[in-house]
Amino acid sequence: MKIIENEDLSSIKKRIRQATEQTVDPVIKQRVDDIIEQVRQRGDAALKDYSQRFDGIELTDLAVSKAEIDQAYNRLDEKVRTALEKAAQNIQSFHQLEVAQSFEDDSVPGVIRGTKVTPLARVGIYVPGGTAAYPSSVLMNAIPAKVAGVKEVIMVTPPQKEGLNQAVLAAAKIAGIDKIYQIGGAQAIAALAYGTESIPQVDKITGPGNAYVAAAKQAVYGQVAIDMIAGPSEIGILADDSANPKNLAADLLSQAEHDVRARAILITNSLNLAQAVSDEVEAELKTLPREEIARQAIEQQGFIYLTDSIDDMLALMNEVAPEHLEVQLENPKQYLAQIQNAGSVFLGPNTSEPLGDYYAGPNHILPTGGTARFSSALGVWDFQKRIQYLSYSENALQRDASNVIALAETEGLDGHARAIEIRGEQND
Amino acid sequence: MKIIENEDLSSIKKRIRQATEQTVDPVIKQRVDDIIEQVRQRGDAALKDYSQRFDGIELTDLAVSKAEIDQAYNRLDEKVRTALEKAAQNIQSFHQLEVAQSFEDDSVPGVIRGTKVTPLARVGIYVPGGTAAYPSSVLMNAIPAKVAGVKEVIMVTPPQKEGLNQAVLAAAKIAGIDKIYQIGGAQAIAALAYGTESIPQVDKITGPGNAYVAAAKQAVYGQVAIDMIAGPSEIGILADDSANPKNLAADLLSQAEHDVRARAILITNSLNLAQAVSDEVEAELKTLPREEIARQAIEQQGFIYLTDSIDDMLALMNEVAPEHLEVQLENPKQYLAQIQNAGSVFLGPNTSEPLGDYYAGPNHILPTGGTARFSSALGVWDFQKRIQYLSYSENALQRDASNVIALAETEGLDGHARAIEIRGEQND
Repeated sequence: MKIIENEDLSSIKKRIRQATEQTVDPVIKQRVDDIIEQVRQRGDAALKDYSQRFDGIELTDLAVSKAEIDQAYNRLDEKVRTALEKAAQNIQSFHQLEVAQSFEDDSVPGVIRGTKVTPLARVGIYVPGGTAAYPSSVLMNAIPAKVAGVKEVIMVTPPQKEGLNQAVLAAAKIAGIDKIYQIGGAQAIAALAYGTESIPQVDKITGPGNAYVAAAKQAVYGQVAIDMIAGPSEIGILADDSANPKNLAADLLSQAEHDVRARAILITNSLNLAQAVSDEVEAELKTLPREEIARQAIEQQGFIYLTDSIDDMLALMNEVAPEHLEVQLENPKQYLAQIQNAGSVFLGPNTSEPLGDYYAGPNHILPTGGTARFSSALGVWDFQKRIQYLSYSENALQRDASNVIALAETEGLDGHARAIEIRGEQND
Repeated sequence: MKIIENEDLSSIKKRIRQATEQTVDPVIKQRVDDIIEQVRQRGDAALKDYSQRFDGIELTDLAVSKAEIDQAYNRLDEKVRTALEKAAQNIQSFHQLEVAQSFEDDSVPGVIRGTKVTPLARVGIYVPGGTAAYPSSVLMNAIPAKVAGVKEVIMVTPPQKEGLNQAVLAAAKIAGIDKIYQIGGAQAIAALAYGTESIPQVDKITGPGNAYVAAAKQAVYGQVAIDMIAGPSEIGILADDSANPKNLAADLLSQAEHDVRARAILITNSLNLAQAVSDEVEAELKTLPREEIARQAIEQQGFIYLTDSIDDMLALMNEVAPEHLEVQLENPKQYLAQIQNAGSVFLGPNTSEPLGDYYAGPNHILPTGGTARFSSALGVWDFQKRIQYLSYSENALQRDASNVIALAETEGLDGHARAIEIRGEQND
């Protein structure tokens, strides 16, 4: 891995910001716009055409039957099924802590002010196919929606010549998904956003996908809600001399193996550690089945930054705003207060990042590309909305009328003033 | 107003859905993309060029001085200043109830799972100019950000030949805004999203604007967070025979006067009320200074729907998903449970909608165009983010390792499995 020392903080920051600037390929954008238009006009017929063209599969039925889902669950290796069920329990119990509650306030005399927190009615979850078909992502998408109280959780996933991924179907059953359709790509996003004969329109679409899926989600944003535009995986590690270089190398590679564009960044104040990790990465790379992907990622997007102090390390990592952040420093929890930008934080030597990917309970659908500056993990909050309400007594209205009228008149909105005045006239 | 009876629910629903489908004018989109590119490349110079071209103003300084802001505050009519300050107090006390808290859980032995809730660092607020320069919108945008703890709240507003709106500047001082720049349109959104020499890059942009501002917000979404794509104002009213037709007409017109595209919809089970409101709307229209705007809105987007039962009224209104919803039924609060889609709800005869626009405390920046299906009022939640964290003990890691490894192997991600295994080898 490249070790960068003696570079000033501002030039490092600039490089990081540039690396994470969002761009959408205009060719992909145009194709996606066309696909969306076709699905809006031709519904299921368009979906079937695209499946034939892009997936090479002639679909008769878009819906996946309950029998097929049950069979996948029953035939799944018991060890994997148990692991999925335990993971689901942990995800459920963690997300239960996120549920927002309705509130009502009567502190202003004659006025009731409240907020009713309520779930979205119907949401759609995108689950990629092929080698990126991850049962863990099914759990991470669906369980927060179910905890929020969403009545209908719909999953879409690309059809596969060899049949749908069985662990994905089993995970859908464990997570309580209500309906599965085998359709992928931009056409699946369009179907969820606008509805077709088979697929109902949803209120929100969540879940990661390829560049076409990401572009389609951006295009339908506003028509429906979306979670985020997911980019390549990232891991940032803050470490000092107390850390174990073998562990750090393994953790860096656990993200690098996802994607040639994945980012793996170590920031440390120890040259010894930097060199040891760099050597271990090289050694461990050779043992990985996905060596080629991980090697490209490490060569292109892997960096070890050397800085003088832990304060500098933290400042720089806040610029990176990584999706996953490991803190492999002595007494790691004390630094939580200084961490401003990160999707999910892993504290101490035993908290390897894959624990969060699969099992412990926090969500693994996280902001990437520096967007942890302003966004958060997928959570129950993504599936709840808030409806405000207000009730005024006659006395309270009389008391406040002159102030409201003064403001309406300042803004030149006499109709607003009139709506208040007219009640006073009747009450006199 | 058009009264529609004997139409079946599904055809009404279809019409409503079509009326609210989002479309962006491709010509505006292209112009906005060009403006954003220019601002990214040329920074302040581009901003000044656009001000000259679009606003007819040669700007020397983009920043508004503290002296100018203080002067606007000091010279403001005292009645208006008092009203703004009381409104600010109410908005503050309501939004205080929305603050999300950090949490930590130790229910799983050897595992600490938590979420740190923390404010965004810097946000930008867009305030329109001209006749749509509303001091109330300054309060509604800025106060939730300040309650969330955002350190730097930046306001942008278009320069005006006759000088900036003095009530807007005073409201900015009351709301505690940290910095004001006089720049508007798509160029202002671009400046906030990417930063220029004068204007710092922000993490989120909120606030309504014209079609160019809306298109620019959509274009920079992903680079920064945005609140929503705001459409024309809407009011929906549910009323029975107990309601006062004069009040209803005034409330419908208070939204219709905003914009020729504003939507005003009454749903009732009383033909008498429908006819009375229609007559009152005509009578009151003639008294309004903004008659022309309100009349166009009522003619094009104003409807009174007659249905048989209160259940049908509620079902139809949930399809409308209005920005503002008045419930002018007997015992209005009992219907709150059945209201699924609305931005803000106003209960009973005294709770005229302008109370919420200006004064009572709930936010007036609300989802429009049917987006209340999946989104909520602007709130403190827009300015807080959540950073998850996790800490595992050595024993907990040993206990859970086999399940995590089983899941990683199922997904073909051996690097993930390896990151767990390597720790076990060292611990043996």
